[in-house]
Amino acid sequence: MTQDFFTPVSGMELPRFAGVPSFMRLPVVPPGHARFDEVDIGLIGVPWDSGTTNRPGPRHGPRQLRDASTMIRAENAATRVRPFEAANCADLGDVGINPADIDDSMDRITAFYQRLVLAGIRPLTAGGDHLTSLPVLRALAEDGPLGMVHFDAHTDLFHSYFGGTMYTHGTPFRRAIEEELLDPARVVQIGIRGTAYDFEDRDFAKAVGVRVIPIEEFFARGVTDVMAEACEIVGEAPVYVSYDIDFVDPAFAPGTGTPEIGGPNSFQAQQVVRGLAGLDIAGADLVEVSPPFDTSGATAWLGVSLMFELLCVMTG
Amino acid sequence: MTQDFFTPVSGMELPRFAGVPSFMRLPVVPPGHARFDEVDIGLIGVPWDSGTTNRPGPRHGPRQLRDASTMIRAENAATRVRPFEAANCADLGDVGINPADIDDSMDRITAFYQRLVLAGIRPLTAGGDHLTSLPVLRALAEDGPLGMVHFDAHTDLFHSYFGGTMYTHGTPFRRAIEEELLDPARVVQIGIRGTAYDFEDRDFAKAVGVRVIPIEEFFARGVTDVMAEACEIVGEAPVYVSYDIDFVDPAFAPGTGTPEIGGPNSFQAQQVVRGLAGLDIAGADLVEVSPPFDTSGATAWLGVSLMFELLCVMTG
Amino acid sequence: MTQDFFTPVSGMELPRFAGVPSFMRLPVVPPGHARFDEVDIGLIGVPWDSGTTNRPGPRHGPRQLRDASTMIRAENAATRVRPFEAANCADLGDVGINPADIDDSMDRITAFYQRLVLAGIRPLTAGGDHLTSLPVLRALAEDGPLGMVHFDAHTDLFHSYFGGTMYTHGTPFRRAIEEELLDPARVVQIGIRGTAYDFEDRDFAKAVGVRVIPIEEFFARGVTDVMAEACEIVGEAPVYVSYDIDFVDPAFAPGTGTPEIGGPNSFQAQQVVRGLAGLDIAGADLVEVSPPFDTSGATAWLGVSLMFELLCVMTG
Amino acid sequence: MTQDFFTPVSGMELPRFAGVPSFMRLPVVPPGHARFDEVDIGLIGVPWDSGTTNRPGPRHGPRQLRDASTMIRAENAATRVRPFEAANCADLGDVGINPADIDDSMDRITAFYQRLVLAGIRPLTAGGDHLTSLPVLRALAEDGPLGMVHFDAHTDLFHSYFGGTMYTHGTPFRRAIEEELLDPARVVQIGIRGTAYDFEDRDFAKAVGVRVIPIEEFFARGVTDVMAEACEIVGEAPVYVSYDIDFVDPAFAPGTGTPEIGGPNSFQAQQVVRGLAGLDIAGADLVEVSPPFDTSGATAWLGVSLMFELLCVMTG
Amino acid sequence: MTQDFFTPVSGMELPRFAGVPSFMRLPVVPPGHARFDEVDIGLIGVPWDSGTTNRPGPRHGPRQLRDASTMIRAENAATRVRPFEAANCADLGDVGINPADIDDSMDRITAFYQRLVLAGIRPLTAGGDHLTSLPVLRALAEDGPLGMVHFDAHTDLFHSYFGGTMYTHGTPFRRAIEEELLDPARVVQIGIRGTAYDFEDRDFAKAVGVRVIPIEEFFARGVTDVMAEACEIVGEAPVYVSYDIDFVDPAFAPGTGTPEIGGPNSFQAQQVVRGLAGLDIAGADLVEVSPPFDTSGATAWLGVSLMFELLCVMTG
Amino acid sequence: MTQDFFTPVSGMELPRFAGVPSFMRLPVVPPGHARFDEVDIGLIGVPWDSGTTNRPGPRHGPRQLRDASTMIRAENAATRVRPFEAANCADLGDVGINPADIDDSMDRITAFYQRLVLAGIRPLTAGGDHLTSLPVLRALAEDGPLGMVHFDAHTDLFHSYFGGTMYTHGTPFRRAIEEELLDPARVVQIGIRGTAYDFEDRDFAKAVGVRVIPIEEFFARGVTDVMAEACEIVGEAPVYVSYDIDFVDPAFAPGTGTPEIGGPNSFQAQQVVRGLAGLDIAGADLVEVSPPFDTSGATAWLGVSLMFELLCVMTG
Repeated sequence: MTQDFFTPVSGMELPRFAGVPSFMRLPVVPPGHARFDEVDIGLIGVPWDSGTTNRPGPRHGPRQLRDASTMIRAENAATRVRPFEAANCADLGDVGINPADIDDSMDRITAFYQRLVLAGIRPLTAGGDHLTSLPVLRALAEDGPLGMVHFDAHTDLFHSYFGGTMYTHGTPFRRAIEEELLDPARVVQIGIRGTAYDFEDRDFAKAVGVRVIPIEEFFARGVTDVMAEACEIVGEAPVYVSYDIDFVDPAFAPGTGTPEIGGPNSFQAQQVVRGLAGLDIAGADLVEVSPPFDTSGATAWLGVSLMFELLCVMTG
Repeated sequence: MTQDFFTPVSGMELPRFAGVPSFMRLPVVPPGHARFDEVDIGLIGVPWDSGTTNRPGPRHGPRQLRDASTMIRAENAATRVRPFEAANCADLGDVGINPADIDDSMDRITAFYQRLVLAGIRPLTAGGDHLTSLPVLRALAEDGPLGMVHFDAHTDLFHSYFGGTMYTHGTPFRRAIEEELLDPARVVQIGIRGTAYDFEDRDFAKAVGVRVIPIEEFFARGVTDVMAEACEIVGEAPVYVSYDIDFVDPAFAPGTGTPEIGGPNSFQAQQVVRGLAGLDIAGADLVEVSPPFDTSGATAWLGVSLMFELLCVMTG
Repeated sequence: MTQDFFTPVSGMELPRFAGVPSFMRLPVVPPGHARFDEVDIGLIGVPWDSGTTNRPGPRHGPRQLRDASTMIRAENAATRVRPFEAANCADLGDVGINPADIDDSMDRITAFYQRLVLAGIRPLTAGGDHLTSLPVLRALAEDGPLGMVHFDAHTDLFHSYFGGTMYTHGTPFRRAIEEELLDPARVVQIGIRGTAYDFEDRDFAKAVGVRVIPIEEFFARGVTDVMAEACEIVGEAPVYVSYDIDFVDPAFAPGTGTPEIGGPNSFQAQQVVRGLAGLDIAGADLVEVSPPFDTSGATAWLGVSLMFELLCVMTG
Repeated sequence: MTQDFFTPVSGMELPRFAGVPSFMRLPVVPPGHARFDEVDIGLIGVPWDSGTTNRPGPRHGPRQLRDASTMIRAENAATRVRPFEAANCADLGDVGINPADIDDSMDRITAFYQRLVLAGIRPLTAGGDHLTSLPVLRALAEDGPLGMVHFDAHTDLFHSYFGGTMYTHGTPFRRAIEEELLDPARVVQIGIRGTAYDFEDRDFAKAVGVRVIPIEEFFARGVTDVMAEACEIVGEAPVYVSYDIDFVDPAFAPGTGTPEIGGPNSFQAQQVVRGLAGLDIAGADLVEVSPPFDTSGATAWLGVSLMFELLCVMTG
Repeated sequence: MTQDFFTPVSGMELPRFAGVPSFMRLPVVPPGHARFDEVDIGLIGVPWDSGTTNRPGPRHGPRQLRDASTMIRAENAATRVRPFEAANCADLGDVGINPADIDDSMDRITAFYQRLVLAGIRPLTAGGDHLTSLPVLRALAEDGPLGMVHFDAHTDLFHSYFGGTMYTHGTPFRRAIEEELLDPARVVQIGIRGTAYDFEDRDFAKAVGVRVIPIEEFFARGVTDVMAEACEIVGEAPVYVSYDIDFVDPAFAPGTGTPEIGGPNSFQAQQVVRGLAGLDIAGADLVEVSPPFDTSGATAWLGVSLMFELLCVMTG
Repeated sequence: MTQDFFTPVSGMELPRFAGVPSFMRLPVVPPGHARFDEVDIGLIGVPWDSGTTNRPGPRHGPRQLRDASTMIRAENAATRVRPFEAANCADLGDVGINPADIDDSMDRITAFYQRLVLAGIRPLTAGGDHLTSLPVLRALAEDGPLGMVHFDAHTDLFHSYFGGTMYTHGTPFRRAIEEELLDPARVVQIGIRGTAYDFEDRDFAKAVGVRVIPIEEFFARGVTDVMAEACEIVGEAPVYVSYDIDFVDPAFAPGTGTPEIGGPNSFQAQQVVRGLAGLDIAGADLVEVSPPFDTSGATAWLGVSLMFELLCVMTG
């Protein structure tokens, strides 16, 4: 019976365009639901972009990702993982953020994830902009700092914006390190590129021991080599995986607020996740999908395809 | 408690872009749900366009309509009706049609609606192309033919297409009259216009007594006068309301398969529904919203705004 | 046999989305074709926008209009005219203009239309920008100046642009009057509006006797009254009808280069053509449809719907 | 000399698609510029949407409005006003808001407008969401409360959102009345419609004496009659004009965050501004244009066309 | 003379945006045309998507492909093949399918292709969804089973859908093997990837001897090696080439119904076709281009560019 | 002080979506400006597409490129070049071309650039179609022919179009060589591909000594090797760099008039520019960005990212 409840609806039975769209056609099991405690991995939306300094839109991400996710099937053809059989997965709904109050929103997000931690549920989050990761980490790192594998075009390690604003989508991991939610020696950032105002972020990374792998190095060494190093850096202790969709080249992921050309293609985007197999993943997120800039829906489809890959390494 | 269960989520509490999108943020209560029998009015999606002879897409209608519907609030500012307090409304989910088999799909739709009839639930359907109305009427008209107010640019009274194909979105009401699901003397069609191959449909209408009000007459007489006649024609007996979004001018409703210029504006589109107040409405549908052709989402928003107007006259 | 040859393909037999798209699914009968001399009314594309001073695109108009035109059927539901039975209509193909040479292009266009005049074919042209009308008029007015009913947001009566450039889409009718292709006393311009650099165009109109009906007057008097005056102005002698799609409000016709808000709706856009019934129409054009700015295709559909109305008054 | 400096570039000399796009091709004269004090009317962008409770995007409004505004010419064809000759107009640039801090942003906006007040410049603002009006009014109403003519689908008179958030685009005029920036007896709101959670806003309006004219009344009475009442309400004392683009029907203005069907067309949208002639306008704004939802650019073009109408009544 | 008749119109003479759009600007020679028997290779549209289980649209493929194809020139710059000189090529028009009847449509398609077989014309088909291949193969394989090189993200070897529906775009090659239209030992499928419900299709492939080359193997070995194996598998006997546009990564081909990330780029997409040189190609198709999802037209342009490559290996 | 004047506005202070959009947020310093002579490198727009033989639109390029360029920051993360500190850079505005007169436009462009030459300013041009390069070279090559590195899918070396038209975007470098503006022995063209009418262009290249590197060779040898040869060919004398955006694969650059599949990705697009380091670059252009076909804005963002790379090699 439990088996049935947590099994996604098959498109062989109900067409994929039909039905109320939950993540990957899983049951919707919000906190308070009778079976909430049975969930192993929860898919959560954080429809929030108040930390965005440039082009807004990620607040619409979870809904578009849910829509696209109804095209996901049951098995990973490359790795043969069947995540929905390996763990009880469910759509836990969206966090009810406050679009006009950043501090209030962060508190609401942390509180939501604290309930997951209490219930032993590992989160796979659909953002939202990258500031989302900070309040999530506040809940997940209660027992000590986590390691992190971070795919992104940007380090998000800046100190502040606009004359002192501390909480934006360019600062979450600076804050997370300051708050000891992340252990900088166990953090690796992959795919960094684009223009910069200065290198304050990278100076900080160097000072605290965060490993930054620029895109040029990524392409020169290849996925396998880079991911081997990444796994070594984070080691066997619990690790958080944060995947900014702008890691991928904008031809593949146009729907995002701060695109940077010269990024990986979609096959490499999958491969890096498969390279995480074996890690102890405490949680993961896929952020910065911005539907208003995703004119063809391709970014959402890429995003949920990567969420599925993340789910497979979390359960495989 | 019942009150709370059937109350939509307020955007003052949870932002309208957040959450799994059900129709008008109502609870999802599919057949088999513990509270199914408490529902008064059910909102159902029929994601189906196999009857479409020209440009496909309405199979995606229910999902896009659900998405847009999360911007609907609680009260009709013009009529002061608060439908969600006047009746137990719920999202009953989508009918699981078979996109590659028309006959099978029609049977599945009729079976779904028969369950509603048994439970005493009145349906408000989101199509789907206009063939949707036929299998719905087969369930609703079990006790005898219904009257119908039909808003459309086309009569949908044709005999057949492509050398004998009887079931397309151009034939549902021919079939419904032949099957005695509709009483032609109590049927009125409003907004008819566009080019025609011939007038076989209108000859049939005249022969069986269906009243056709072309758009020229509609504009010349005005909404109030036309709707008074329409109400008189259908009378006090149970009536079905079928609203094809292509009734409205394509500037207001571009996302549809068979647009015809020279139609009503969106205010008139609302007014005609308000003109139905007082009728005994056995069920209603809003069909032919085609998201692939709705580049800005405007048609879906118009569509759900009209569904809300329909809901208000069904409960007001 | 002739009957069959000039009959458009019916969507009841071949779906409207199928087939090589000629105008209104008519046979393609270019000059030189064996049956060219049997044609009564020729539909021609002039894929040309070299006269455009602002946003280009009308060179793509004929193709998009042909595509949309496959949704046109056989009979005008409002007027009951069946143009394809009333006259031999055909798609004569596109004029082979030279996109990099305005003078050469004008010569090519005039030469093409002279062949029509010789064959006794009346043209219904799909532009192209409004400069198209000038070389067409050079062919049509060989026997003396024509009258003209001109629907537009702009007078297109300016003297020159950019320090002396005489041939742009803002000058065709100034040139046509100077060249005595049009009789200014028999010219009426309807729908004029928008901002202006100066009133040089209207001063010219007044000086030569062109009647300009601004949009405010159009709305105040109504279609019937305005069109009665227009018919009186042009009288019983041969008249050219030039219809710039920007006559219509940009909500209905977004795909054009110089939109002006505050225009007629699509029903009024049809009515004004119907008001031409009875005139001796020597030729007509529908210009300034710009597919690159027509994101939903609505403008092309409006455009061919109006071409069909023009065809009906040319044959009815 | 002054004349030349403040004259927009003509499209007859430099094509309208050329050049760095300032508002209406006016000179850019930010605070601090040598000729700042010569400006009579300043066009300012407030690229800000932090008060948006639903779909974001108006932060991109000023740039898109500037782009579209290069199609504006020198004279109002309907009223014959030539605003750029009647007053020294200039583009004052954008206010440098802080997208991640609402309070900081409001302070920055008010400070910017206080410089205008000191210099005797009347502002015509391009938003930004509707919260923009509040910090602007704080600067303009320093000598006492203003009257206001407010075109909108919504009253924006709500008390708070999301459990106590006081500053959103749904609350600016509640705050403005509480802060005595507006005299409620001299405020009129025109075009109100759509669904509502409750009527708290309208109860407040009634309690303080704000006149609300719903869209049904607007259509029933007509523009002339409604605007006569509006002018009477605000009287001869200084008045602010706030124009939310969602006043207009979404077919004409799709690019906005909270569209409501059943609104005025673009001609009525112009006419209501022309109806303000003779008022003592202390400032005006055009808000809620949201480029990410304006797929064809039509809303920006409508918006700047209305800004031009506003400019004409401010100078005419 | 024959030479001239079958030569496409040059864009050096008539601009590529001009003219009624036939495939590659070839003459339109439908069955029954006087020169039908002179055709060597026929380009045919099958505007049909009734087999589509998810997102519809390929019925519009042929028209959009024709439009894009007018940008194709005369020679393959890489291989120096000039196909229009090597063989008499023509546009044979579209098959008149019945959008509301799958069985009827398959019969019509097969009948159309039987006429080609009789006339000795080899077909290059523009779909249509992938079910199109089945009725085509029924005509082509009359003398015995063919080999097949199949480029696709999916095997299309499933047994049935929705509880027993046998004819969908996921089943054509299962049927073709069952009907002995294809020799499974001479079938190779390249590019397979994505999520799966189960591996029933691959189990069937293994059981009957179809060679499946997943995308991971494709990338690891490279185009040259993979295509050498493919050519070896199909050998020297007649072979069909079926190219599903979703073989290519969705960044390059967004306009399709069932995209799968992690696919080849457009250069690889060309290279695989060039790798077919020397095979005895009995026919080929390019399917699943879905214009409603091809927001920029890029997929159609890719599609016809690949059709041109196919034409070059069929004639080179 | 000079330092400050030529420093772009930082997005850390003013959000990137705010402000009047000049190229890379540099000061606007048109000819005649007091500080014009201090400029080292001028960014100029040439909003012109009169040479376009197929799909128009590049006249809108400069404005869209300026808009996108406001996301460019101060430093090249890969090469560590900070161009705005290395040289005085400024936006010199747009050349005032005449859209209806090619010869007049070429004269205006050449005259504009002659002023730059006199002032010792090196130009970085944003086109415009590729004919733009010719009048620019006429100004730059006054002291003798230049070398050229040319990135493009096409050689643009054709003799003439449409029966003798000499000035189109397919002929600029044929003219430039004929006019001795370029030294053919020092010209290299990289990325050539696509279909061709004939090889007249390549025969000309061979005859005069232009080196053509087709895309197949480019991919086979790799960026480093190809660019080493390119640098050797052009040598140490002054060189012009002309970058047609259609060099890049259309998945990365859909917004252009003559796309050719099978091109480089965006990383390679950057790398080739970095490979120019050390050359004596007399000027550069980035042409053929066509906003009407750039539905997502991705092409403009790619274009300005490449302009930034060009600026870095011009200053680094």
